[in-house]
This record gives sequence, C-alpha cells and structure tokens, in this order.
Amino acid sequence: MALPSDHKATIIDGKAIAQTIRSEIASEVRLLSEKYGKVPGLAVVIVGNRKDSQSYVNMKRKSCAELGIQSFDIDLPEDVAEDELISKVHELNANPDVHGQSLAIVGSILVQLPLPKHINEERVLGEISLEKDVDGFHPLNIGKLAMKGRQPLFLPCTPKGCIELLHRSGISIKGKNAVVVGRSNIVGLPVSLLLLKENATVTIVHSRTEEPEKIVREADIIIAAAGQAMMIKGSWIKPGAAVIDVGTNAVDDPTRKSGYRLVGDVDFQEACNVAGWITPVPGGVGPMTVAMLLKNTLDGAKRVIEK
Amino acid sequence: MALPSDHKATIIDGKAIAQTIRSEIASEVRLLSEKYGKVPGLAVVIVGNRKDSQSYVNMKRKSCAELGIQSFDIDLPEDVAEDELISKVHELNANPDVHGQSLAIVGSILVQLPLPKHINEERVLGEISLEKDVDGFHPLNIGKLAMKGRQPLFLPCTPKGCIELLHRSGISIKGKNAVVVGRSNIVGLPVSLLLLKENATVTIVHSRTEEPEKIVREADIIIAAAGQAMMIKGSWIKPGAAVIDVGTNAVDDPTRKSGYRLVGDVDFQEACNVAGWITPVPGGVGPMTVAMLLKNTLDGAKRVIEK
Repeated sequence: MALPSDHKATIIDGKAIAQTIRSEIASEVRLLSEKYGKVPGLAVVIVGNRKDSQSYVNMKRKSCAELGIQSFDIDLPEDVAEDELISKVHELNANPDVHGQSLAIVGSILVQLPLPKHINEERVLGEISLEKDVDGFHPLNIGKLAMKGRQPLFLPCTPKGCIELLHRSGISIKGKNAVVVGRSNIVGLPVSLLLLKENATVTIVHSRTEEPEKIVREADIIIAAAGQAMMIKGSWIKPGAAVIDVGTNAVDDPTRKSGYRLVGDVDFQEACNVAGWITPVPGGVGPMTVAMLLKNTLDGAKRVIEK
Repeated sequence: MALPSDHKATIIDGKAIAQTIRSEIASEVRLLSEKYGKVPGLAVVIVGNRKDSQSYVNMKRKSCAELGIQSFDIDLPEDVAEDELISKVHELNANPDVHGQSLAIVGSILVQLPLPKHINEERVLGEISLEKDVDGFHPLNIGKLAMKGRQPLFLPCTPKGCIELLHRSGISIKGKNAVVVGRSNIVGLPVSLLLLKENATVTIVHSRTEEPEKIVREADIIIAAAGQAMMIKGSWIKPGAAVIDVGTNAVDDPTRKSGYRLVGDVDFQEACNVAGWITPVPGGVGPMTVAMLLKNTLDGAKRVIEK
C-alpha cells in the first residue's frame, strides 16, 4: 500500500473515547440506582505512601465519584502485616451488600500494586474472591480468558481498553495479523489472548525475538507493550497499520519544568507518517485503562444486584 | 537456505523417543517402590462402550502395567447419571493413598472423553481435584501455564509431548519463529503457551487466518494441529524447518483392508523434501502423548509420596 507523501495517521483519541464510555457507565449507574436503590462500589486498598501509587489511587477514586460509583478507601500503613492485609481482603470478600450506612454494593476489590517488599503479592491477590477480582489477574480468570468457549468474570483493564479502542475506531480485527510486542502478565499476554478470541492471527514478540522489526512490519495491528521508550520506529510499521501504544516511559526533557516527559514504546512522530491509526502517549491507552476499571466495577455490581 | 536436490528431512522417531522416556519412567517407578514401598496409580474412568474410547483406554492401561504403574479401572455404563459420575470422581479425589489392598498412590485421575451427551463434560472435568488432573485441562492449570512466573501442576500431555520431541531431537526453540496451526484447548492453545515459555516467537494460525501459507513459510518450527488432512504442503515449509505433526486424520484407502489409513495435517511426502526434521503419522506425536500421560502420573504420585 503506497501512502501519499503528506500522509498522517488518524490519531485515536483515547481520552475522548474513554469519556464516552464513562458517560455510558454513569447512565447505567443511574439506572441501577433508580431501579434497585443501589450503586456499584469499589474497594480500593493501598498500602504505604508511594507517591505514584497514591496518585493512581486518587485518580481512580475521583473517577468513581464522578460516575456515581462509591469507592471505599482502605489505607493501610507501609508496615502492615501480610496476614492483616489478607484479613482485610477477606472482610471485603464477605461484604457483598451494604457497606456501613451506604447503599453501595462492594462488587469489586482493587489492591494497588506494588505492595511493600515484605508482602507476598501473589498470595494477597490470590485471596481476592474471583467474583470481585476487578483487575482480572487471577490465574483462573486468565485460564478462562485463554480457553475457547470459556469466559472470565473480568477482563484485565488495559488489554480490554486496547480492544475497545480498536472497536470504537472501526478497525476490524478478525483475520488480521496482530503483533503484540511484550508478554507481561498484565498486558502483553492477556491482550494476545483477547486478540485471538477476536479471530486475529496473533504473533507475540518479546526480548528474545530475533529480528522483531521484520515481524512487526507484517502487522495490520500492533500492540506495543514492551516498556521500551520509542523502540518501534517508523520503518517497523506497515503502511496503514493500526498502532496501539501501551508504553508509558519517562525520558529526560530539560525543556520541561518537571525535567521529564512521557513517551510511548513507539516513535510517535515517525509512526504518524506511516501508520493508518495511532494512539498518543499520554492520552491514548491510559484513560481507557481507568474507564475499563470503572466498567468492570459496574459489571461486578450488576452481577450481584441482578442475580 | 538452499537444500541439495536429494535432501530428505530427518525423521523424528516419536515411537523410539517415547520408548526411551518410558524406560526412564519405569526406572523411577522402581526406585519409588524400593524407597517408599509405593507405586504411582492412575484411575482411568470410562463411560459407555465407544470402541475408540475403549481402545485408547486399553492402551493406557496396558502402558501403565508395562511400567509398573497401577491403573484402576472405573467402567461406568453409558446411562450413568452425571451426579453418580461426579460422586465417583469425588471418591477418587479423596483417595490419596492405598486403594483397596494395593500399595498404589492414586495421584492422578483420567476421565476418557468424549462423555455421553447427557453429561456435562465441563462440569465433570471441573470436579477433578487440581492435584490429580493428569490431563492438565483445568482452567486454573491453563492460566498458570499462560502466566509468566507461574507453573501448572500438570502440563497437557500432547503439547508437552511436542516440546519434548523438539528437545530430544536437539532442536533449539529459544528465539526461533514458531507457528502453531490450530488453537484448540487441548493442543494448539497450550502448545503456543509452552513455546512462549520456551522463548520462541509464537504465531497462532487458525481457520480465520488470511494467507496461512505465507505465515507458515516464516516458521523455523511448525506445530500442525488443525485436524485437516495434509493441509500443509511442501511449498508452505521453509527449507530446514522442524515440523511436528499432531494431526491424525483417517482418509479413504481402498488398498488397505480397513479401507482407510491415517495421515497427518502435513503432506508428509512433500514436506520430507523441504523440512529439516519431521514427525511421521502415525509414530510421531501419538506415542509421546501416552508417554507424557505416564510421566504426569509418575509426577503426580511423587508429589504425594515425597511431600
């Protein structure tokens, strides 16, 4: 496919799409509230004082409030014992209905990662009830995501956000060559499995791949989730391909007050001249991850309320 | 890579490799018996009188006997109630140790598929204790197989057999382009996940893939598991590639007394002129599946005995 010399990729505006989804969720929350007198609740557990974790958690809590979802703050000290944290998780598991005086259904539990080093993350996450595992990282959820004919209770938020961006941009997936760069448990692997369920032909490229550029160049859809700043160059991209950039990498930038700026795994400027569609960083996948968390929270509560 | 005109692929002799593995297992069984006075046991459950199922089950039972593994025959009538079958599974789950007067550890349970139509297979398989799910098809096992840093208790037998054939033939996997044709829950999907864990660059090709031959032609390793007789032609194969043919398809053959013969998913004659290595059908992957079942049975019993 030859592109005109002044070709520019269509920018996929993740912020705007996420905003649309948030409005849809807010309407559904309103309907639930009118019909059942209940609203979805999300328990957000944070341990310690990491600035980045606190800023993520605040954003999630603020988003809940905007949509009429009730968030419950569980802030535990840095030195909390693992067993105490797990007791808290069990308490939240066992609390399907009203929390205190509120009318919220605590249908979902989010434990903000990373946890302090003295705590076994895998153990803690494994204690979250499957029905409330809003991040969808439980191995049983991942197994059902992998298997044909099975459906997990929750899809992991970032992978689900990537697929939603493709759907809402009118990019067809079925039969297309999709290349996922990166194979992490939270993005690369589950997004590969989702693309397979959407009937794409899926290739997973990773740090051990020989000649990744040659493989990426065959892709109609590229999901970049390697965590390597601007690793994917314009020359790696097939003309007209759809590029979803999951990377969020801080690079030095003395022109900024903060001294850094965020860039994706894709060289955005170069890619714009070749790709058919591309997500910016920031403002692409990031807002979708939060929107999908809110959607999962809604769905978790609906399963409790409507059953 | 140019091949000499008289090139012939190295035939991977699955029968011989399986025999080596069976000898290794027999030695380990003997050691266990000497050290602990116990042998591994496999409960084989069959429902009804399907000829093919009976012949598979008989082969598995005979193989157990040859290796010193005790198999327990649970033969249930075609019209057995689902709940009765599940009670039987629960009984086997709860029976970690001596079975009757024997000294066998019933570490593994195999329910021969397919089950009669009135029985919900998914429900029955889901009732097998994870520790005894020798086929490794439980979604939690598949999830752990998919996830980095997690390990399932049992690897599904056929996928494990494919990887073992590559290893024992000295074919390196790391960094190689592996293309899996087919995405079934029992072969294509799990073998893709295993190849990824072995650091191959993995592409999954399936019925919705456009131009599969173009993708297969890039493969250093081909796993053919589509269930389509001789679908993969010589022209689809990169010179020197390793071809593992999981297919077992019956095709009409009036020259045979039976009226049919078994062929793989690969056109063997054509492929021999191009591939570096190839498995025959029969005598390739088939014997490995049984060998891996026996290995899983041994490993399941060892986990009980040695803990």
